[in-house]
Amino acid sequence: MTARTYALGIEYCGTTFNGWQVQPDRPSVQAALEEALSNFADHPVSVICAGRTDAGVHATHQVVSFSSEAKRAPEGWVRGVNAFLPKTVAVRWARCVPDDFHARFSARSRTYEYWISNDPVRSPLLDTTTGWVFRPLDEEKMREGAKALLGVHDFTSFRAAECQAKTPVREVTELSIIRQGSLIGIRISANAFLQHMVRNIVGALIYVGTGREAPGWIAEVLAARSREVSAPTFSPCGLYLTGVGYPENPELPQYGRSPFFGQF
Amino acid sequence: MTARTYALGIEYCGTTFNGWQVQPDRPSVQAALEEALSNFADHPVSVICAGRTDAGVHATHQVVSFSSEAKRAPEGWVRGVNAFLPKTVAVRWARCVPDDFHARFSARSRTYEYWISNDPVRSPLLDTTTGWVFRPLDEEKMREGAKALLGVHDFTSFRAAECQAKTPVREVTELSIIRQGSLIGIRISANAFLQHMVRNIVGALIYVGTGREAPGWIAEVLAARSREVSAPTFSPCGLYLTGVGYPENPELPQYGRSPFFGQF
Repeated sequence: MTARTYALGIEYCGTTFNGWQVQPDRPSVQAALEEALSNFADHPVSVICAGRTDAGVHATHQVVSFSSEAKRAPEGWVRGVNAFLPKTVAVRWARCVPDDFHARFSARSRTYEYWISNDPVRSPLLDTTTGWVFRPLDEEKMREGAKALLGVHDFTSFRAAECQAKTPVREVTELSIIRQGSLIGIRISANAFLQHMVRNIVGALIYVGTGREAPGWIAEVLAARSREVSAPTFSPCGLYLTGVGYPENPELPQYGRSPFFGQF
Repeated sequence: MTARTYALGIEYCGTTFNGWQVQPDRPSVQAALEEALSNFADHPVSVICAGRTDAGVHATHQVVSFSSEAKRAPEGWVRGVNAFLPKTVAVRWARCVPDDFHARFSARSRTYEYWISNDPVRSPLLDTTTGWVFRPLDEEKMREGAKALLGVHDFTSFRAAECQAKTPVREVTELSIIRQGSLIGIRISANAFLQHMVRNIVGALIYVGTGREAPGWIAEVLAARSREVSAPTFSPCGLYLTGVGYPENPELPQYGRSPFFGQF
């Protein structure tokens, strides 16, 4: 039997999982997916993902790759595997890819969205799907501050202490901020992200949005190259992986649904 | 001590509750709210609601009334009671009202929204907050069929067998249908609703949207005055109470947030 390599687009609600990665005795998205894939393929399947997400973080467009000897049409993996998955995880699409495709190493860009409920009172229906800021946010000031982050920079100031990346240099190619009613949506694309980088950037942008810091403070934080000077890591609940770019594999969808149907 | 009467606007996620109404040994929104109110007021509090909702049904704008001898400013009830409530329920606003105000009997209209995820593949992030229809829906045909329901009619065909209302006659004053990406939103206002009336109407509109029935079929179902001829009751997950009208109490907000920020 010859193994074929597949790529899948995965959506999940991260609320009930201890993050993407398999951990002993704790539920993970990866474990749920590998169990369902193994059931459907009838042999053990391990997957590689484009970007590991923390506990409570969601995805509308995680991409995984794996190889299997099971003879199934690509579309068969969608319905077949979904029947074995819990309601909190689903395969959205499936494609055959070249054997050297690797969900992590072949990816040239990732896109995350962060959604904030900017409301004086907490909203039970948004509790696990947004971060909550009760002070009014000025999105124009947030946009002004965010400009400093575009381009190639050393993002040490926005990097978790336990981050294991070899270099803190990343290229941010997009940072858009929109308001939709009481929601604020932030979309960030980069070649890759450091651990907690989006949540740390969002924490800093909130300091600017509430007026605690001036927009120019973001550039100062970036230049300081020190986690000490920045704002706290913001809640995981509003964070979504929504896109992964594989320019050498144009057959793969690049984006998933915007969680709140944002018009960026 | 003189008792004062209050009205509160309540938002809740209905997923983990067995509906609004207090039931022995089962979690209900009413029980959670009355417990929190009693804790804050320091005496037992019972509430009356504008519209009882079924298990799994949500609200961005349920209205309750109650009387209390506790001396608290109206705004105090918002923060104070929210501290005692679970994350799935919140008080959004509080107002003093005349002593003869009754959340149910003073209400002259109710508004519900129903949100459908119209997507070939199920979406984990919308699992408990929308109904799911995988066949493509033609919202123009749904709008055409829905026109027959506007005005004063006998809604027996859309009434649950166990409904205890004295009369099946209701006046539907609005029925709007919009598409936002892969979501379809339906907003219905009426003087009052029969049990399962919105979910039964949505079930019938879906039959029209998928092409299983022609738009004119809705008028036939209505005229038949029989539950037998209509479509099955649709899922509770996509249903939200979003408005209650008290024209004699203009100090009360009339609508809550549209769950998916619908531009109706």
